[in-house]
Amino acid sequence: MGTWLEGKAPAEKIKEEVRQEVAHYQKTKDAVPGLVAILVGDNRSSQIYVRTKEKACQALGLWSEILRLPAETPAGELKAEIEKRNAADHIDGILVQLPLPSGLNAHEVIFWIRPDKDVDGIHPTSLGLLLENQPGLRPCTPLGIIELVKSTGVKIEGSDVVIIGRSMIVGKPLAALITNENGTVTTCHSKTRNLAQVAARADILIAAMGKPAFVGPDFVKPGAIVIDVGTNSFSDRERIKELFGDDPKREKDLQDKGYTVVGDVDPRAIDKAGYLTPVPGGVGLLTIAMLMRNTLEAFKRRHGF
Amino acid sequence: MGTWLEGKAPAEKIKEEVRQEVAHYQKTKDAVPGLVAILVGDNRSSQIYVRTKEKACQALGLWSEILRLPAETPAGELKAEIEKRNAADHIDGILVQLPLPSGLNAHEVIFWIRPDKDVDGIHPTSLGLLLENQPGLRPCTPLGIIELVKSTGVKIEGSDVVIIGRSMIVGKPLAALITNENGTVTTCHSKTRNLAQVAARADILIAAMGKPAFVGPDFVKPGAIVIDVGTNSFSDRERIKELFGDDPKREKDLQDKGYTVVGDVDPRAIDKAGYLTPVPGGVGLLTIAMLMRNTLEAFKRRHGF
Repeated sequence: MGTWLEGKAPAEKIKEEVRQEVAHYQKTKDAVPGLVAILVGDNRSSQIYVRTKEKACQALGLWSEILRLPAETPAGELKAEIEKRNAADHIDGILVQLPLPSGLNAHEVIFWIRPDKDVDGIHPTSLGLLLENQPGLRPCTPLGIIELVKSTGVKIEGSDVVIIGRSMIVGKPLAALITNENGTVTTCHSKTRNLAQVAARADILIAAMGKPAFVGPDFVKPGAIVIDVGTNSFSDRERIKELFGDDPKREKDLQDKGYTVVGDVDPRAIDKAGYLTPVPGGVGLLTIAMLMRNTLEAFKRRHGF
Repeated sequence: MGTWLEGKAPAEKIKEEVRQEVAHYQKTKDAVPGLVAILVGDNRSSQIYVRTKEKACQALGLWSEILRLPAETPAGELKAEIEKRNAADHIDGILVQLPLPSGLNAHEVIFWIRPDKDVDGIHPTSLGLLLENQPGLRPCTPLGIIELVKSTGVKIEGSDVVIIGRSMIVGKPLAALITNENGTVTTCHSKTRNLAQVAARADILIAAMGKPAFVGPDFVKPGAIVIDVGTNSFSDRERIKELFGDDPKREKDLQDKGYTVVGDVDPRAIDKAGYLTPVPGGVGLLTIAMLMRNTLEAFKRRHGF
């Protein structure tokens, strides 16, 4: 039986460090990091995410702004708004909340952000600097995963690491980060053969493909660190009972919202894993903390602090 | 006993395609792709490489220039020369021959090149676009490796691919390219444990770490495609005899130059491999062909052809 690797303690630790450093710069330089979140359209999850980010800024002393634009905003207008903030000295971080409405191309939009203000770390230049292991802003969720793994005391260097999923936000940048940390990375995806067998070689297994409870105990090497990046809205009551047993919180979710949030890992894998991150309460908490740290980093670099 | 996978035929095929396309644009648009190679200092191998590239341009009908600068060229002056060519309409490709003299930082210098003229595909923005699987210029040697593998008729999709080495020029971009081609990639390096055992899982094994004849038959799964990216000057006569037997060409190399060029793979691995690329005569020939194709691609994209 492994240990649940909760995100709360490491996330709080990072946020507290950011809070103290922000207070220090406010006192000594009369300046604080500034973050703008751009929300196009009214996707409900996106609204919640953006509010969560704003609250984190407020709690840690960062300046923040939410720019809300209608779903039908033309590309040229969005570009002009981004460019205004590229030029604004009080703004250190610019993030565009994804997904975008169907009329806008996310890749094109991200490209308009100045790489040194790209606190989500997903501008092509940021990704290239990551691949090269050169200084730059790194994507928040992969950074959070590295923090979580390190919090166990297990070394990444020399470890066999298997990543399932190759998204631009998690899988691909994480593979580069772990290679830079001297882990031996295998990136798996829908075309990988014998997936469970490949995964079961891993000292550190990261599930980030968006399939509820897909990674069962047979994917897990005994004692492995398993990081679950999935957040799937799931409403199959019978399967939920099979996965979680009689869990009053899950039951309440189903009654109140009609779904409960399930990761990519079958929670029963805890019996075989050394560590497993819960969903919710795992990686997600770190992502916000790393966004705050990235904004502070961008601020320090731009000002030469 | 496997087949030697020679680079000559696929390289010639690509160069012939480029030559024909260049002739077509010369005829229909009165324009040809232009490549400038910038050589700082007088590194002897670099001089040979740059001359080879120039000759390839001449043979295929591309415009070319070698800009030779003294080793002590200040960074600012090199930057000005690059920017002049960034702006020049007749130049589609700019490459800076590496390594640079000790006073210049390669990463910084590459950054000055316009990404859409970065025909070596090693600007951070090019690397980021590669990671994202978005259109852009890709590094030449990894492109050549993909061509060589495809020339065997073996599918990359679903294959287990092991890359030994994580350089910015080969290992890292190749891992991204193969992930984009739906292969399952493991990137290995000096910190990887049980390297031979990991390598022996590969359907496609790529050796790119710069250690002469390091990859022995024990690294090779029977029937695997083995791509040898190493080019090591090597002069241990006894070891050379062990590797190649009585080879008059190697013997002549040793007498004439004091060394012979050896790959990262022990040539006796041919007994176990399905295919093995020779050194010289393998990957290297493709690299130049892909540089020509990249220059043509850059020309077409910039002009909207």
